Amino acid sequence: MNPKIEKLIKQFAKLPRVGNRAARRIVLGLLQDKTGRIDKLVEALTDAHENIYPCPNCGVLTDKANGICEYCRDNTRANGMLCIVRDLADVWTLEKSGVFNGRYHILGGLLSGVAGVTPEDLNLDNLSARVRDEKISEIIFALPNTVEGKTTQQYIISTLTNTNVRFSELASGVPLGGDLDYIDDGTLSLAFGGRREL
Amino acid sequence: MNPKIEKLIKQFAKLPRVGNRAARRIVLGLLQDKTGRIDKLVEALTDAHENIYPCPNCGVLTDKANGICEYCRDNTRANGMLCIVRDLADVWTLEKSGVFNGRYHILGGLLSGVAGVTPEDLNLDNLSARVRDEKISEIIFALPNTVEGKTTQQYIISTLTNTNVRFSELASGVPLGGDLDYIDDGTLSLAFGGRREL
Repeated sequence: MNPKIEKLIKQFAKLPRVGNRAARRIVLGLLQDKTGRIDKLVEALTDAHENIYPCPNCGVLTDKANGICEYCRDNTRANGMLCIVRDLADVWTLEKSGVFNGRYHILGGLLSGVAGVTPEDLNLDNLSARVRDEKISEIIFALPNTVEGKTTQQYIISTLTNTNVRFSELASGVPLGGDLDYIDDGTLSLAFGGRREL
Repeated sequence: MNPKIEKLIKQFAKLPRVGNRAARRIVLGLLQDKTGRIDKLVEALTDAHENIYPCPNCGVLTDKANGICEYCRDNTRANGMLCIVRDLADVWTLEKSGVFNGRYHILGGLLSGVAGVTPEDLNLDNLSARVRDEKISEIIFALPNTVEGKTTQQYIISTLTNTNVRFSELASGVPLGGDLDYIDDGTLSLAFGGRREL
């Protein structure tokens, strides 16, 4: 195979969710395309690479030209609620669902002894300042329902004990449309413990 | 979502085998990467885009600087055998298997009444000249085992009747490790018709 093509395939194969086979198909598609797709892709990549950075307030990726991100700028979102998430993908998921209309704070990871992630690795420096300056009354943890998620949650709560903020977390239980047959024992036990009276 | 990020996701989602969800993950991964992955990807894309073109002899994508491709240049491959395939991915598959060591000819498609693909759309202009100039004694059709593949094969044979070239096609049958339970009737019928005496 031509080395230039091989190099390009290798770059695509490094992307998340793209294996070697898919990378070959992608590169073939791009190189045989006659609609200028490569130009558009290179342009969009370069533009994003040069102009996108994490919002210094909350960590959401945004345009440098704007300073802070669209959520931090939006005053209708200054409702005293702050949702703590692991990464930007979670923000997109929540925004798509429309269930939350406050501000976000992206940690950029979760505490983990195994992976060696310590509090210094997370985006926590300005959190207590945000709680104070943005008059946050409730922090909602929307972290993964895992040991790492719960550990991180507990750690953050412990750093904010001298504030009046209330803490909450997403409910655990059977997902909508979830068949009991396919649900693990842990979820089932949480769903039983948190059962609602009708 | 930031419009620059949205635009980039859209470009990735257009690639073969990449859906919207995967495109989001890819873009997030790229924008959060700190190892210069975007630079390398842009560089590889630009380099390939500017320097790769179809070999004027056989259609294999190759470096413009080389003129013709590595297979057409390689004199050990001038063994009189020419393998006709649909696209470059098929060449890669055959090369990986190591079963063939002659020259290739890429059609760039298959005749199809439904899709409106006519002989003029295929890379056939120089085929009879190649047969003559490269002293081809056998043409092996490695086309998909479909109506379009067989139609294309028949058409090509009909254009080369005034030559001494022999024609062959890949054998049809049960794939290695193939369980009869999972094989369609057409394949089974071909496998029966072509049964080998032991």
